[in-house]
Formats: sequence, structure tokens, C-alpha cells
Amino acid sequence: MHSLQQALDGLLGDELDTPSPIVVRETMQRNIERMQALADERHQHLRPHVKTHKCLEIGRLQLAAGAAGITAGTVGEAEVFAAAGFDDIFLAYPVWPAGTKGRRIRRLAERVGLRVGVDSFESVDALADAMGDAPDRLQIVVEVDCGARRSGTTAEQAGRLAAHARARGLVPVGIYTYPGHGGSRPEDRVGAAKDQDQELTAAVRALAGVGVTAEVVSAGSTPTVEYSTSEVITEVRPGEYVFCDRDNVRLGACTDDQIALFVASTVVSTQVPGQAIMDVGTKALGREGNPQRGYGGVAGDPAVLSRLNEYHGYLQVPPEQSQPTVGTVLPVVPNHVCPVVNSFEELVVTDAQGASVERWPVAARGLLG
Amino acid sequence: MHSLQQALDGLLGDELDTPSPIVVRETMQRNIERMQALADERHQHLRPHVKTHKCLEIGRLQLAAGAAGITAGTVGEAEVFAAAGFDDIFLAYPVWPAGTKGRRIRRLAERVGLRVGVDSFESVDALADAMGDAPDRLQIVVEVDCGARRSGTTAEQAGRLAAHARARGLVPVGIYTYPGHGGSRPEDRVGAAKDQDQELTAAVRALAGVGVTAEVVSAGSTPTVEYSTSEVITEVRPGEYVFCDRDNVRLGACTDDQIALFVASTVVSTQVPGQAIMDVGTKALGREGNPQRGYGGVAGDPAVLSRLNEYHGYLQVPPEQSQPTVGTVLPVVPNHVCPVVNSFEELVVTDAQGASVERWPVAARGLLG
Repeated sequence: MHSLQQALDGLLGDELDTPSPIVVRETMQRNIERMQALADERHQHLRPHVKTHKCLEIGRLQLAAGAAGITAGTVGEAEVFAAAGFDDIFLAYPVWPAGTKGRRIRRLAERVGLRVGVDSFESVDALADAMGDAPDRLQIVVEVDCGARRSGTTAEQAGRLAAHARARGLVPVGIYTYPGHGGSRPEDRVGAAKDQDQELTAAVRALAGVGVTAEVVSAGSTPTVEYSTSEVITEVRPGEYVFCDRDNVRLGACTDDQIALFVASTVVSTQVPGQAIMDVGTKALGREGNPQRGYGGVAGDPAVLSRLNEYHGYLQVPPEQSQPTVGTVLPVVPNHVCPVVNSFEELVVTDAQGASVERWPVAARGLLG
Repeated sequence: MHSLQQALDGLLGDELDTPSPIVVRETMQRNIERMQALADERHQHLRPHVKTHKCLEIGRLQLAAGAAGITAGTVGEAEVFAAAGFDDIFLAYPVWPAGTKGRRIRRLAERVGLRVGVDSFESVDALADAMGDAPDRLQIVVEVDCGARRSGTTAEQAGRLAAHARARGLVPVGIYTYPGHGGSRPEDRVGAAKDQDQELTAAVRALAGVGVTAEVVSAGSTPTVEYSTSEVITEVRPGEYVFCDRDNVRLGACTDDQIALFVASTVVSTQVPGQAIMDVGTKALGREGNPQRGYGGVAGDPAVLSRLNEYHGYLQVPPEQSQPTVGTVLPVVPNHVCPVVNSFEELVVTDAQGASVERWPVAARGLLG
């Protein structure tokens, strides 16, 4: 029997409602320790991205294992963790401080060690304006594009941005990049990590050229961290490793037995032969996947969800298997775990036997800005 | 200037944070009244699906305009609306009453008029068991498949299910169907509505055959409601019409000027020529769309989001347009509005000039079971 099925079976006595996100604590703890050991071995700081779990308890486990601080994706995430005592936060996003955000960033920067990403002169200016008479409370990390073609400036331009931040009284501390082009196909992981090393190395030189020491040289990501071995890198920011998911198994970035989160889901209709309708749809899983690969699968089973509606998942039962009966609860493993956690108010945390139950709030759920 | 852009421009003085879901109240009210008029004209009840808005204030506007009751997709949605005084609720889902759900359904059924969907003998039995000594408090609506091949039994079998529900002391009141196969391509809408009429008509006969009068003959959906003209239909359950979205415009089920909800989103990076990165990704919009059609668009503009990450949308700027500058706020129209509303804690409700602001909670946000 698959280990996730075993945890689920243990829980079913306890009035478990579905859909419900279940975390197997030992598996998660092993993931936390394994990533920490990898970073330690390379003398890199580990700064886990909390957008994956949005959960204070899990952030604390990461710090307890040795993480140097956390990475956030939004001002709201940073605020929730800061309010709970996390005092070293990197907002790795080219945040634009309009609306209430300028004021909130300043308030955060006055309370905790806060770094934010920038990739334009305009955002440096806007952040300096937002910081008013205290620009030296805000650390600036210049984003460099290493090939993902999303955000981030060129390595060459990074020096000029750092110099401009310094001229505005902000504190440029280094550079970061996100090798997103290594997150789709297994064969792209190594190349994206190499691109990352190359651009970070060039950007370190560009910062040195304007007299800024890059104390922080920050690299992504769960799919590429295995190859982020360059000596120039001072920290890594993986997020998904804490739970793992089908996408990371497919990419070769984790193994099936490292998956620590599944969604307990009930078969609610079996009217169509070869198909079971589960009570898990896009509002739980997101629409992560495609028709060929499916949108999630059952742990330890070839069956995948071939289609989703909001509250319905279409499980295709392979011809050699019998159709599960209505009321059967199955462990559904997400393709991409981050949107799933964000769909729920709390995580059900259990052990490998499903014998214990704790409920941990998804404290930074939502908070998209 | 597009009307949604006008509302957005009016709001920008008020410290608007992005991403933020903005509802233009007059447009929504016209949508509510137009759908009510359509149902009234046909002597059908309108029972709007609240999974689209999950918002008590909007549900009340629908009732005030003449809706007969509401449709919910989960027990949690039904509970939130029941607690707020909505007393006629159809849970149009083949709900399986395990965990706490059996108890919760019974409690609901004892407080409000509650109908639930069934498509199997097993679920009839499970619901009857859950209702204990009060099965006659729960109304049963048998789901009939009209070609969507999701859930729902055959028209023929519907009679046997209704008879079984009656034998168990439950109160069978009719049938429902969801013509989901009319929601993907414009050319499928009419056919799906015809399939729906045919299966509902056959199922009414099947119920009559076992001596059950189908007082309720309930049909979907925003894409097909225009064609749901059959005299056998007693009620329609559209949801998306209240806001409309790009998918419904594409299907011909609404027009661009009927779109009442957009996501205010800020350009945060313009490092890649021809592209603007917006602060709206899958955690706001869901991954609804495909690479060809995009995952959302700017109101009144050909530009679409060609790709999404969690907090990033890649806006492709057509060659003839200039790239928007960092900090520009644009009105992003979702492809599929339902997951978007569920991504936020509250809706920002304004008028066509963006001069007034109310914040209405997404009261049934999440609540996936």
C-alpha cells in the first residue's frame, strides 16, 4: 500500500471531511532536513519561499532546521510572517509600492530585516520615496534575468541599478534571479542552473564595478537547486521541496516517496464507466497540468484526473482496474502544490499512520498583494 | 475609453491595492435584472448558482430581483447562506454525507428548505441514514446526465432512484441536469440545450411512471440558458451571468459591455520588450485558458496574458501598442470568473465612475466541501 494511502486510512475514523489537504509530518520534516543539509554542505544559506506553505508552523520548522530567513512573494505574506516574529524576510518580487504598499513596506522595514527585489530605476525611486526619511532601513536586491524572460534586468544593468539605489539612500546588498525556464521539462534543469550561475557571476562583477559588494547572491528554485553549485551563490530560495508534488517528480527534482501533501478526496459519482467523479476540482487543485498529463493523480496509482470543473475531478480509471465505489476516499497528489495550499484555510497535519491530527492555519492564505 | 477602465481610473485615488477584484455595481445589477426578466418571461424560476459570487450581498440582490432561491455547490456554501437567512437552497451536487457532512446536512434541512442532488442508490441510502428519524425534511432532486458525461443517471433510471428515495422516507421533488458540454465551444450551446430538454422530458416521464410528480425540473447554465426554452423546465440555475467573463463573451452568452468584474492589476516589470509583467497570476485568476487564447485580457484591448505564474501575469503587448510603464494599473478581465472571486477575501464594489467604494466579503470563500 502506498504510504500516503496508509496515512489517509488512519485518518478516516476521525470524521475527515473532503476535500482536505493532508500533510504527513515525518515526510515533510525529512524534506526540510534534506534541503538544509544540501545548502549546509555547500555553505549556502537556505531561505525557503513561504508562498508554498503560507504556514507559520512550517516556517518555524524550516528556521529550526537552520534556514537563514524566509522568502515571501507578496507584502501580505511578509506582514503575516513578520507579525509572528520572523525577522529576516526577502520579498523576492519587483514590488510596486502604490496604494497602501509603500506605507506597509516602510512599516515592515522599520520592524524586521527586510529586503525587496527591484529591476527598474522607477521602482528604486518609488521605494526610496516610500521610505521617506528612513531609506537606509530597506535593503535592495537587484533582480537579474537568467533566461526566464519574466522580470529582472541584465547583469550589466544590475550595477547601475545598485548604484542608483545607493544614491537614493537605500541599501543595495546583492542580486537574485529565478531560473523559471528550468521548471517545465526535465532536460532544462541543468541548463537553467548554468544560465543562473553565469548571470549571477556577471552581475556580481557589475556590482563590484560600481563599488557595491554583493553580499547576497540568491538563486532559485526546487527544480534547479540540485545544480545550483556555483561558488558565487550565497543563498538558495526553493519553496516546493517542503511538500513536493507530481511536477517535481516528473522533473526528477524529487521522488514519489518524498511527497508530503495530498488532498483527501471522495468519489461522489460513478455513473460513467471507467470514470470516477471526485469532489476535488479547480477550486482545490487549480488547473495545473494539461489534458495529456492530467491535473493530478492518485498516490501510488496510474489513475489521473483528466479533467476538472470547479468542484469535480474526472478520475480516469485504467481498464485493468475496477471502478472505485461511491464514497471511497482517495489520496489525490497535486501536480503543483502551491495553489492547492492556498485553496484551504488549514492543513491537516498527521503522521505516517494517520494516528495524530493537528490543524495548522494557512495563515497567509490569499494575501495576493 | 472602455467603461471598466473608467471605473478603475475613478478608484485609483483611493489607495487601491492590487490585485483587487472590482465589481461595477450598475452593470451587475443590469445582469441580474436581465436574467430575471428572461426567466420571468418563460415562467421559469431563477435559482442563481452562488458558487460564482459566494457573496451574501449579491445573493440578496438576486432574491430582491425575483430569484426563487439559490443554488449551492458545497455544504459549506449552503451553510453560510443559510446562516444569513437564505431559506430555500438547492445543493446541486451529488454530495456524499461522510465526515461531518451527514450531520451538517441534517441540521440544514431542519432549518431551511433544502434540496440535494443524488445520482445513485448508494447516495440515497447514505442521505436517508444521515437524516435519521427526519428523512422527510430533505428534498431529493435526481441528477440526470444530458450528455456532459460527468455525473447524473439516465432518464430511465431516474424514476427508480426517485422511488427508492421515497421508499426511504426522503421527499423526491424532481430532476436536474447540467449541460456542461455546452460550455466550451459556441457551436455546442444550442445542441447541449436541446440534449438537456430531451433528457429532462424523458426523466419527467420516468418519474411519473413511478408515481412521482416532478415539481422541480431544473436546468443549467449561463452558456445554455438562452436556449433553455422547453416548457418542461421549471427553473434555471445560471451562475456566471452575474459578472460575465471572457469565456462567456467568446461563447456568445454575453457581450463585452455586460462584464461587471475585473481584477485591477499593476505592471511591475517591463524588462522584456513587448511584454509587461502584471501582479496577477494563478493565485488570483486560476489557470483558466490555454496558451493560444491566453489566461485573461485587458478590458477593451487586444492584449492578453499569454502565461501565468503564481504572482505574475505575462501581458503580451501587440506590436502596434507602446509598452505600458511600470506602475500602470490595468483592468484585467478573467476568462472564467468563478475561481477569481474565490481567490479574494472581499469584492470592491463601485459605480461606473469609480466614485463610490464598498467592500463586500466573499463570505463563502473556500468552503470546498
